[in-house]
Amino acid sequence: MTGKPEKSKRRKPRLVSFRIRKSPYFEATERYGCRAYTTYNNMYLPLVYKDLVSDYWHIKKGVTLWDVGCQRQVEITGPDAFNYLQHLTSRNLENFKVGQCKYLPLTTPDGGILNDPVCTRVAENQFWLSIADRDIHLWARGLAAGYQMEVKIQEPDVSPLAIQGPKSFDVAGDLFGDWVRELKYFSFKEVDFQGMPILLARSGWSKQGGYELYLRDCSYGDQLWEIVMEAGKPFNIQPATPSSIERVESGLLNYWEDVTEETNPYEVGLGKFVDLDQEVNFIGKEALKAVKTGGIKRKLVGLKIHSEPLNQLAQPWAVESSGKSVGNITSAVYSPDLDENIAYALVAIECSHEGTQVFVDLDGEKIEATISNLPFIDNREVLWSGIKND
Amino acid sequence: MTGKPEKSKRRKPRLVSFRIRKSPYFEATERYGCRAYTTYNNMYLPLVYKDLVSDYWHIKKGVTLWDVGCQRQVEITGPDAFNYLQHLTSRNLENFKVGQCKYLPLTTPDGGILNDPVCTRVAENQFWLSIADRDIHLWARGLAAGYQMEVKIQEPDVSPLAIQGPKSFDVAGDLFGDWVRELKYFSFKEVDFQGMPILLARSGWSKQGGYELYLRDCSYGDQLWEIVMEAGKPFNIQPATPSSIERVESGLLNYWEDVTEETNPYEVGLGKFVDLDQEVNFIGKEALKAVKTGGIKRKLVGLKIHSEPLNQLAQPWAVESSGKSVGNITSAVYSPDLDENIAYALVAIECSHEGTQVFVDLDGEKIEATISNLPFIDNREVLWSGIKND
Repeated sequence: MTGKPEKSKRRKPRLVSFRIRKSPYFEATERYGCRAYTTYNNMYLPLVYKDLVSDYWHIKKGVTLWDVGCQRQVEITGPDAFNYLQHLTSRNLENFKVGQCKYLPLTTPDGGILNDPVCTRVAENQFWLSIADRDIHLWARGLAAGYQMEVKIQEPDVSPLAIQGPKSFDVAGDLFGDWVRELKYFSFKEVDFQGMPILLARSGWSKQGGYELYLRDCSYGDQLWEIVMEAGKPFNIQPATPSSIERVESGLLNYWEDVTEETNPYEVGLGKFVDLDQEVNFIGKEALKAVKTGGIKRKLVGLKIHSEPLNQLAQPWAVESSGKSVGNITSAVYSPDLDENIAYALVAIECSHEGTQVFVDLDGEKIEATISNLPFIDNREVLWSGIKND
Repeated sequence: MTGKPEKSKRRKPRLVSFRIRKSPYFEATERYGCRAYTTYNNMYLPLVYKDLVSDYWHIKKGVTLWDVGCQRQVEITGPDAFNYLQHLTSRNLENFKVGQCKYLPLTTPDGGILNDPVCTRVAENQFWLSIADRDIHLWARGLAAGYQMEVKIQEPDVSPLAIQGPKSFDVAGDLFGDWVRELKYFSFKEVDFQGMPILLARSGWSKQGGYELYLRDCSYGDQLWEIVMEAGKPFNIQPATPSSIERVESGLLNYWEDVTEETNPYEVGLGKFVDLDQEVNFIGKEALKAVKTGGIKRKLVGLKIHSEPLNQLAQPWAVESSGKSVGNITSAVYSPDLDENIAYALVAIECSHEGTQVFVDLDGEKIEATISNLPFIDNREVLWSGIKND
């Protein structure tokens, strides 16, 4: 087993920029046939192996391995770490225990969402923010300097690798032992796995069940990838990528698409992660109080678009009612499982009720659409039980 | 002239992410045959039209049009704008006048380089940092909150379009009038150009001469592109991209390659932009004092690599002397003009003198190389005179 492709292959000129970082799994993804990459946190993120639909079905029915090393960690340590973190987010963290992961919106002074990381409490005074695509590291350092709290902000040598799909429990069980089947959703254990330091979390950016292996030493990247692929063989594991289809079906939000700094937690269904009654004056608290008092004017909703299967990436197409624009699409895909076009849209509150009929302006064509509850597919049974398999 | 490609073309599925921003020139770049993009400041940046070498020759011999809308501006306004800015950079700004642009390294508390933008003093209390690839916006906001100065930090609706190459003076002269030929290097004038608000600067990321048109209303993007292409016809203008070859020949640094947070200004030839004697305690002043006192241990140098023309992107190949590693390559290209492989490397100070013989470990092959002064090609005559044409 070697991590290096043959020399001839490496000498081939490629439009890969030195400026953009490579995860420790990058060479493996190339060997395994990744056909296209995007960038995320200034690092290559695989986009497609076979094709988007095959990769999607494999996530839903089998088990897949994802290079998500681009989920960079912003590590907060030091005596003031907890207090500092509580200032960054609207979520009340008082019950946040070591061993847990929590999804927490980071807020701006205006109450917008700066990012929506999953935070891991690695130790009493050690937190990792597993960030969406944005250099939160710079924000966190600037603020820490401002607050003059005793914290240290850095990007540690940590590179997540995700095993996702309903058969992930079998693969991880064979690899790490049966205890991983009982690991609670959004909790983790630190393991020494064949000499590799890994924080093993039951989490991941799909709702098909699975694990994220936070590898704490990038030099093992290729080795870890190959060990997981080998263990996954009996379950027909395949390399894949976070699925833009599955995540819309499952109600997962994507930062920069459905959530941006221009949206606040109440608008995008994250109001449960805002605690205005806590003592700490977290960033954005006053602004969010005003939003709550005044009520929101628009809301992120599901939308079924009644047209031929969409074969293009979504654009911010206008959503219309009675001939007037009432909002915009934020994501849209064709779901092979539902055989429908499903979308998210930010629409005026008066048009946000389930069943409301609207139109989507698809490059000039007015297409009928219906407001729908989220998620489109509720997969909590698999997600929370951890024992279901087909 | 319409900015929209035909519908059939737009309906073609593409692996273009909604998450990554498009500049106001994006559709034009597609129409004009851009073959590949990279991302920069979370926005698409054209990488190649014809091929890297043709595009390069056209920049050096003719005139080219670049979509550099991804050079996002971090705007600093407010009564404390100047004082705040002076804290961000090691460069002494006391002679910085409205109408000028200045290259200024932003420094970290440790004296490293956070970014190396060109700053435009648009008005007495209005500055634009035209940033390299990094979300400096977040750093600047975090710090402003910390300093509690009266400043506002935002990303304005400004999208640079560059006209670069020795014939750029003719194109810009025809477009804007002969006065642009006399515009001093790194200065600007605001113009109302056929109703479009533009800050026209004599600048750009090549040393072939040229202009950057800071368009201040993105809705005119397509229109401006077409007007420039039309005016450039007699001079055979072609769309191109910042050239990774030309910039190494000309001694331009690329953030994330040659310059990072791990390098300080003294190491990479930017010591002239550090003023330790000024009164303001800019970020990193103490750390840089210590560096100056102790002396630098390594230095960014030019390197000629005596091998067959490189046909791959540079890797951080080791530079060796007497069988020991003394540093690393940071950029390397084959220069068709010089018919040599030219590179930058960060090497131990004792190996940094011109003419020093070293070896480069090119994937296992030890290739002879010679330390060279920078720039490889001195093009100041074209750059500063603004009147030379072939």
